[in-house]
Amino acid sequence: MARMTDDEASQIADERAEQTQTRRATAPALEEVLFEPIPVLDHGFVRCVDYMGDDAAIVQAARVSYGKGTKKISQDEGLIRYLMRHRHTSPFEMCEIKLHVKLPMFIARQWIRHRTSSVNEYSARYSILDKEFYVPDAANLAVQSSANHQGRGDALDPSQASAVLDLLRDDAIRAFDSYDHLLNADETGAPRDPERPGLARELARIGLPLSSYTQWYWKTNLHNLFHFLSLRADSHAQYEIRVYADAILDLARRWTPLATQAFEDYRLNGAELSAQALDVVRRRVAGETVDQKASGLSAREWRELETLLNP
Amino acid sequence: MARMTDDEASQIADERAEQTQTRRATAPALEEVLFEPIPVLDHGFVRCVDYMGDDAAIVQAARVSYGKGTKKISQDEGLIRYLMRHRHTSPFEMCEIKLHVKLPMFIARQWIRHRTSSVNEYSARYSILDKEFYVPDAANLAVQSSANHQGRGDALDPSQASAVLDLLRDDAIRAFDSYDHLLNADETGAPRDPERPGLARELARIGLPLSSYTQWYWKTNLHNLFHFLSLRADSHAQYEIRVYADAILDLARRWTPLATQAFEDYRLNGAELSAQALDVVRRRVAGETVDQKASGLSAREWRELETLLNP
Amino acid sequence: MARMTDDEASQIADERAEQTQTRRATAPALEEVLFEPIPVLDHGFVRCVDYMGDDAAIVQAARVSYGKGTKKISQDEGLIRYLMRHRHTSPFEMCEIKLHVKLPMFIARQWIRHRTSSVNEYSARYSILDKEFYVPDAANLAVQSSANHQGRGDALDPSQASAVLDLLRDDAIRAFDSYDHLLNADETGAPRDPERPGLARELARIGLPLSSYTQWYWKTNLHNLFHFLSLRADSHAQYEIRVYADAILDLARRWTPLATQAFEDYRLNGAELSAQALDVVRRRVAGETVDQKASGLSAREWRELETLLNP
Amino acid sequence: MARMTDDEASQIADERAEQTQTRRATAPALEEVLFEPIPVLDHGFVRCVDYMGDDAAIVQAARVSYGKGTKKISQDEGLIRYLMRHRHTSPFEMCEIKLHVKLPMFIARQWIRHRTSSVNEYSARYSILDKEFYVPDAANLAVQSSANHQGRGDALDPSQASAVLDLLRDDAIRAFDSYDHLLNADETGAPRDPERPGLARELARIGLPLSSYTQWYWKTNLHNLFHFLSLRADSHAQYEIRVYADAILDLARRWTPLATQAFEDYRLNGAELSAQALDVVRRRVAGETVDQKASGLSAREWRELETLLNP
Repeated sequence: MARMTDDEASQIADERAEQTQTRRATAPALEEVLFEPIPVLDHGFVRCVDYMGDDAAIVQAARVSYGKGTKKISQDEGLIRYLMRHRHTSPFEMCEIKLHVKLPMFIARQWIRHRTSSVNEYSARYSILDKEFYVPDAANLAVQSSANHQGRGDALDPSQASAVLDLLRDDAIRAFDSYDHLLNADETGAPRDPERPGLARELARIGLPLSSYTQWYWKTNLHNLFHFLSLRADSHAQYEIRVYADAILDLARRWTPLATQAFEDYRLNGAELSAQALDVVRRRVAGETVDQKASGLSAREWRELETLLNP
Repeated sequence: MARMTDDEASQIADERAEQTQTRRATAPALEEVLFEPIPVLDHGFVRCVDYMGDDAAIVQAARVSYGKGTKKISQDEGLIRYLMRHRHTSPFEMCEIKLHVKLPMFIARQWIRHRTSSVNEYSARYSILDKEFYVPDAANLAVQSSANHQGRGDALDPSQASAVLDLLRDDAIRAFDSYDHLLNADETGAPRDPERPGLARELARIGLPLSSYTQWYWKTNLHNLFHFLSLRADSHAQYEIRVYADAILDLARRWTPLATQAFEDYRLNGAELSAQALDVVRRRVAGETVDQKASGLSAREWRELETLLNP
Repeated sequence: MARMTDDEASQIADERAEQTQTRRATAPALEEVLFEPIPVLDHGFVRCVDYMGDDAAIVQAARVSYGKGTKKISQDEGLIRYLMRHRHTSPFEMCEIKLHVKLPMFIARQWIRHRTSSVNEYSARYSILDKEFYVPDAANLAVQSSANHQGRGDALDPSQASAVLDLLRDDAIRAFDSYDHLLNADETGAPRDPERPGLARELARIGLPLSSYTQWYWKTNLHNLFHFLSLRADSHAQYEIRVYADAILDLARRWTPLATQAFEDYRLNGAELSAQALDVVRRRVAGETVDQKASGLSAREWRELETLLNP
Repeated sequence: MARMTDDEASQIADERAEQTQTRRATAPALEEVLFEPIPVLDHGFVRCVDYMGDDAAIVQAARVSYGKGTKKISQDEGLIRYLMRHRHTSPFEMCEIKLHVKLPMFIARQWIRHRTSSVNEYSARYSILDKEFYVPDAANLAVQSSANHQGRGDALDPSQASAVLDLLRDDAIRAFDSYDHLLNADETGAPRDPERPGLARELARIGLPLSSYTQWYWKTNLHNLFHFLSLRADSHAQYEIRVYADAILDLARRWTPLATQAFEDYRLNGAELSAQALDVVRRRVAGETVDQKASGLSAREWRELETLLNP
């Protein structure tokens, strides 16, 4: 149960070896890792298989320019940061990236909620799935959070974790064995056991666990990629999608370093204040002491604001 | 394992009982069944929970009219059929429908590929899933099709079917028992077995089968609904999504009868001819005999055309 | 050159007079003004012609509930504010509104940039445009802003304003007269001057000014409406689109008062802080004195932050 | 009033001269003309400024492959034609193209209706428009069609055409002169006539004609490009947008020759039959004589079918 077969690895190596000339904008730091799978979770990966545009392309589009339109890096940076700050989002749509991702199905179901993207997924109606499923690291097992209704709380102790992992693994193996039995197909698709028919693929797969790995090509523009990252690289996201988001954020830094830095500064690591919270901040900056009661904030919002101001 | 609980059924009955006045366009035949669940598969359903517009709304938008703009039903029908025929699609976007659907997850994964819609799905990170999974009818079990790589061929004989169903059912029960064990939670969320912690919901669910039922609110406009139906009420769609599409097509007939009839005539039951197929048809209508070799069509396209012309 | 003809006004009155029963959610305060044109600019208007859902519909979708799912208004409000605060945007997509808008073409060109909506516009290829164009109020004429490259600065004095308005008005009248001459069509479409042919409508209109009024049906969901309002009810938006946004914001308050209040509190009247600005705020709240040099902010961002904190 | 300035032409030449290495898929025939403006109408152009993917990228995505996944051109062609025929549209979304277009505003207003694309338009709030407007060729002037309510009929005779062109040209010049007068700005933005203030740009432009040229960067994927072409390269489209569509179709042939050929065969030059028309065709192919009365088709649809079968 390796991350990819020797044949797959060799196809990737072949693709990486080929170089051609182009008049298009190129992003050298991204070219370096193009096609290279970045390992994520136990069997997953994400790899960039194509891209369009770079930081300069954002500037060109914003200026609707005839040529590269780049005078100095510092001017480009200033414009990009201005666009990000004022939510002039359309120039960021002018860059596009295509990723090949291998991921567990329960993560695929969260990921696909981002609608402004193009997807081609491996079809289990048409093809047979490999016997690959996600089993968490013991260190990532945790109890239901009591504070956050959709998150994790304290980690499990090692012996408890071990029992959980055994159960998850045994059930998954059993489900894949049943799948194999129901398909009853050798490599050519012919029945291995000629005494009984193979079940249609679209039916045989319905008992597979949500932890089964799938794969897709996923293509989106830089604006939507940032939106994806702002939600999925966030601490409220499930750990198993956050690790994909982190890997993609690294790719974005190679691809459009100025835009990605602006995104991190203005969105990912910035904060939003409500009208009421802004009022509290103004008064406190002016030296006033404000308590929750006088703030107009709910107890929960007050706590959130306190945490924001005194991290 | 009923389709819905008594409490849920009674909430629906309450909602159906309430009536208010509105100035908006109403679709009486759809109002009749509003909120009423239409059973689909063994535990699923689809029910219409809201709608906007009717056939006249399509006409009003096409005419950008001040009032109802309807002179005669026959004129509206003529305009609607004209719009459908010439793919003037935007007026059909002026009608909107919201459905509450209970469906197996492997179907949800196909359904969600239709991106121009709004979705709120029951969250298994936040809530605990009911013990409900799809088991096909014996009559719907079939071997992999040899002609169509992503479809079904001959039905299984009863004894074979019975063995398949036992396996699917046993595995699903086992997976749900494991889920229950890992959660270790009573109705209040407190551990049933105080000796061990409950696993976080977002992790406990990863071993559940793709046949598990989920639920969502799904909202789309009439144009996109027709696109959904043209793909999912088609004979190439998987049976388990086709039955949902068929139920929704019935709702569409109640909602916008003229537009839905036009859709069935021009799209669902119509045909597309390629330039080459059109040429063959022209020559045959003119009395010429054309064989595959002279047609410019591939063997497969030739067969498809033959089937289309002589069903 | 009235805002609408007697015939149009009477069609609207007829439509307002009709009431039917519905099981659907209704928004009484919006029903009150349904179909009623709200005057905007000199000849424009916006009127709500249909809607789907209300505040409770947001809650129902967020809970994927079987019935109304509403316990208390205060619980609904809490949930709606939570959803808005944490950018759980999909439940807001479950409400939909349809507007009929009459607006100058240069505003239509800004408006149409909001892509996630449905539009049917009056066609000047098919129909003849009324002789209606926008002339600003003298009070709204201003010089180019020196601070903001895409905005207005000081107002013009009355005599200067008067000269500008005369020029705009004369040119528009001349363009519409030419249009009329080129069309050469009476009400039936037959040539008024039988000695010369009428030019095709799609060509005759190309000389009309950008100030010409057009009309459309525009339909969007509440999430996208809020996004539209956050950009177009903003002080950076051109005055002529801001007045439409303000009128629509009033409609939103009638339709979904809880959600609209949350939008105003968390988005419209809130603020975003970059990572660097947040750091400055933290230090100042903690009693530290920070100047621009030590802040990591550009001079421009520093000024923007100062203005935000001391309005 | 040239198509572009010397400075713009030289920026383009510079951009064309630069070549770099890339690991990405390249489309050599498109590279040849990259950045090169293709003249359209009297002052417009379209030029490809970037692209992502090629025919092989469609195949790779459809197969979710690790490497190029290309065995033989003929296999790729077969798969691409299969995908097109069966409306498996998502692999075509995996190719992306970015165009720089200069076009009259009345055409921009039609073009922008295609929502699934990214646009950055030259801003007349921020910048000053060049004095460029579209004047048709005399040969393209025509009367309103009597058959098609939104099209053109017979051409105007030369003397009539000449009068029309004079009127269009004079009005446009006058409008641009007024614009210039209202702006009252030299190249630096300072008032040319210091005695009176310059009007804000966002106001000065409202009297410009719809024939004024604008520019934008427009980016879309291949699937949506084909959709655009199917509507805008069609004989029902206005001539002035059709010439842009034709130029883009040529670019598509250079970029993805196999996919574009499939699009032309199955969509652009194919035909759709309604259920009723299909029935007529079946009966006529079987040797039956069918007249309109017995066909179930309206008189208009009957004529359309006759024209289709006997062009």
